[in-house]
Amino acid sequence: MRVAVITSSDSGYEGKREDLSGPVIEKMVTEAGYQVVSKVILPDDRKMLEAELARIADAGEADLILTTGGTGFSPRDVMPEATLAVCERAVPGIPEAMRAYSMQFTKRAMLTRSAAGIRKQTLIVNMPGSPKAVTECLEYILPELHHGWRFFWGRPGTVRGNNGAFRR
Amino acid sequence: MRVAVITSSDSGYEGKREDLSGPVIEKMVTEAGYQVVSKVILPDDRKMLEAELARIADAGEADLILTTGGTGFSPRDVMPEATLAVCERAVPGIPEAMRAYSMQFTKRAMLTRSAAGIRKQTLIVNMPGSPKAVTECLEYILPELHHGWRFFWGRPGTVRGNNGAFRR
Amino acid sequence: MRVAVITSSDSGYEGKREDLSGPVIEKMVTEAGYQVVSKVILPDDRKMLEAELARIADAGEADLILTTGGTGFSPRDVMPEATLAVCERAVPGIPEAMRAYSMQFTKRAMLTRSAAGIRKQTLIVNMPGSPKAVTECLEYILPELHHGWRFFWGRPGTVRGNNGAFRR
Repeated sequence: MRVAVITSSDSGYEGKREDLSGPVIEKMVTEAGYQVVSKVILPDDRKMLEAELARIADAGEADLILTTGGTGFSPRDVMPEATLAVCERAVPGIPEAMRAYSMQFTKRAMLTRSAAGIRKQTLIVNMPGSPKAVTECLEYILPELHHGWRFFWGRPGTVRGNNGAFRR
Repeated sequence: MRVAVITSSDSGYEGKREDLSGPVIEKMVTEAGYQVVSKVILPDDRKMLEAELARIADAGEADLILTTGGTGFSPRDVMPEATLAVCERAVPGIPEAMRAYSMQFTKRAMLTRSAAGIRKQTLIVNMPGSPKAVTECLEYILPELHHGWRFFWGRPGTVRGNNGAFRR
Repeated sequence: MRVAVITSSDSGYEGKREDLSGPVIEKMVTEAGYQVVSKVILPDDRKMLEAELARIADAGEADLILTTGGTGFSPRDVMPEATLAVCERAVPGIPEAMRAYSMQFTKRAMLTRSAAGIRKQTLIVNMPGSPKAVTECLEYILPELHHGWRFFWGRPGTVRGNNGAFRR
């Protein structure tokens, strides 16, 4: 499974703050045995985020894009909007599951605006912004994403069989 | 409560695979005392799915349309997109509740892309693709759908009373 | 934190029914130490609801708009549609959390169609329609909304720090 990592952060892009969450994702993905094919810090700019998400998916460079940052309330936080704008199909259950899981630790997780979706053959998932929340959530969802990838990427829908099992 | 059942499956439509989930829905709905007014297997084709969903709702043929199949990740899985495209109003809590319930059995349920919504007086709900998941989820939600239908279909919103109770 | 309250109810607007839920919200918000800057009962009319939501946000009159009513199944229930139409960014985790919480009391909560989102600097949250459900849900979410407001309104997104904590 080839993974691309995108950090959305004005201050990270300008070099004023160290990006801690992007490297956490890279480390966890690598340790899980997957390949990080690209890693980039972009400003909280919807057009630039959309362009990079679409470029990776359209080039077929990665099976999975994990983003961090840009999911909060401030006017510059537009990662979910960029994600849903480029996706042809939404996958609402992944952010739902991350929020429900995170709410066991802090009710504040209800404020996270993360989204997930599919463009062509690439799954895009918005992770939370803090290294701690990224670690918790990625541990929680990575095995399921891998499962989805192994059994279903590019396989047409069927009534029963593995596909049906997946759909549960 | 009149129920229509739609299976989205290329191989089912072509007769290459037996549709197991459609009959499970039909059996459960009938045993619960409701009337199955139509049952059809369609290919995983968004235009054909949209046309059939809209036709049933616009003709007022059914109070509830239950679909199965087409909610996975493969490029041909477009049932949620067809559903939301024809609905005037979304009902996000139904798929949320089904996923949260199914995740008690398997975390993989977070990958299910099911949607639900209302077109005119008809509620449309995407069920999972496998017979086992359909059975679990339909047992879980059918009493609530019936309650919604009994008390609220076509009744204008009010500040308090049964409507308020429903809205909880 | 300045709060505006909007009740969506044809019968409340016409004076045929007493609005019980609006006053419940006003009381709870005031007791929590926040300021209720406006309170209005509108009919279940999408254009009128959209106009009032947009007016408050565009004038910067309130940091938070809490609505009640109009989230059910009847054809006149259009509060979620009005809310999402005027919001630039959705906050799906708030209605998700309210529904998951309410489902501990009644499974029927899955039928609530509530939405939440941000327009400019104003957060808009649809509460349920009944006084009892409003009380339960507002007790549950109000501390989190306050936290979001205190730490994040208008602050640009950053990679770490309080913002990251919030994003969990």
